[in-house]
Amino acid sequence: MNPLSQKLTDKYEIILASSSPRRFEILTEQMGFDNIKVMKPSFEEDLDKSLYVKRPSDYVQDTCKEKAKSILQELTPGSKSKLVLCADTIVVDHTDEIYEKPVEKEIQLRNLLRFTQSGKPMRVITAVTIIIYNTPQEYSFDSFYEQTEVYFDSNIPRSIVEMYVESGDGLQVAGGFKVQGFSGCLIKKVNGDYYNVVGLPLNGTWKRLCTLI
Amino acid sequence: MNPLSQKLTDKYEIILASSSPRRFEILTEQMGFDNIKVMKPSFEEDLDKSLYVKRPSDYVQDTCKEKAKSILQELTPGSKSKLVLCADTIVVDHTDEIYEKPVEKEIQLRNLLRFTQSGKPMRVITAVTIIIYNTPQEYSFDSFYEQTEVYFDSNIPRSIVEMYVESGDGLQVAGGFKVQGFSGCLIKKVNGDYYNVVGLPLNGTWKRLCTLI
Repeated sequence: MNPLSQKLTDKYEIILASSSPRRFEILTEQMGFDNIKVMKPSFEEDLDKSLYVKRPSDYVQDTCKEKAKSILQELTPGSKSKLVLCADTIVVDHTDEIYEKPVEKEIQLRNLLRFTQSGKPMRVITAVTIIIYNTPQEYSFDSFYEQTEVYFDSNIPRSIVEMYVESGDGLQVAGGFKVQGFSGCLIKKVNGDYYNVVGLPLNGTWKRLCTLI
Repeated sequence: MNPLSQKLTDKYEIILASSSPRRFEILTEQMGFDNIKVMKPSFEEDLDKSLYVKRPSDYVQDTCKEKAKSILQELTPGSKSKLVLCADTIVVDHTDEIYEKPVEKEIQLRNLLRFTQSGKPMRVITAVTIIIYNTPQEYSFDSFYEQTEVYFDSNIPRSIVEMYVESGDGLQVAGGFKVQGFSGCLIKKVNGDYYNVVGLPLNGTWKRLCTLI
């Protein structure tokens, strides 16, 4: 563990409020934490998108805050303060349509064909909420979001997109693709924080955490 | 293994001419190959940089071709054609100065402080050479390169850069940092193929390979 992650771990119980293995990897492999507790938010992620027309970053920030609130109810005071990291990721197209986690291959294929054929970048927006918790009466919320453009390759044949969907990968993840898996082959370039596409803005989150030491 | 990587493996013996574990991971984890043979090029990577003033992409392409040539001498005909993938990566600043693999912490620190303080993007250039080999008389070379801009964060304190260098990570890799490790925390954004910074342009290489089936 690097000295700064060690200092944070000495001061706080670090909790990742997400069941995403990718976010866990960013905290452990990139930021160098160990002893992270994982908690799954109970919020259903069912905010009414029609209330957020043309405001996708508000939608993802509100979802993230609701997830954070649902974790807050599960916390109990301990010997150390708790540092809870919560995140939510959506994919948005140039019309501001919001793409979340497809649960069916048909929807995933339709999305990915749109992405590869659009000729325009998709935007991946990840909202992050950091809670510092001492007691049910004494806690603070800090929130931010980050956006990364993802340019899918319009020269990738439909047959390769179909092959990818058929593999079963990319279901249940934002947008229906994992930039860090085979679907990375379909992506020509990113513009922004790559780890934001994976699920957590690395540089932005790290800088916030460093202010908490 | 996905069907396309399977077809390539059926047709060719796949050889990675690089000892970089990161390139190996891109071939296995992203592209889905298994049974990759690894060979280490014997070329010393000592081309005279003064002959390439303001032409860093020529420098890295020539280095890559020399590495590929050194592998060619080691190959012997087999029952299948061989597909050899060779790559070389350099980091270049806005003055076209070339940064390769630092072997000493002092040089690595000097480089990283320049990167974080410059306010301008570094460019990571990876050259790729693909050899299709049947016999010493019958083979072909295909080469290309790709460039990705890397924006280091000028708000990262010097103490964090020093802490990173002190950890011993990032020595012996192009530029003295691994975008996929802790030093990713120092990077605000990339513009281009992220995997090109890791060591192999994923989308570009995959498209070339797909034409070989």
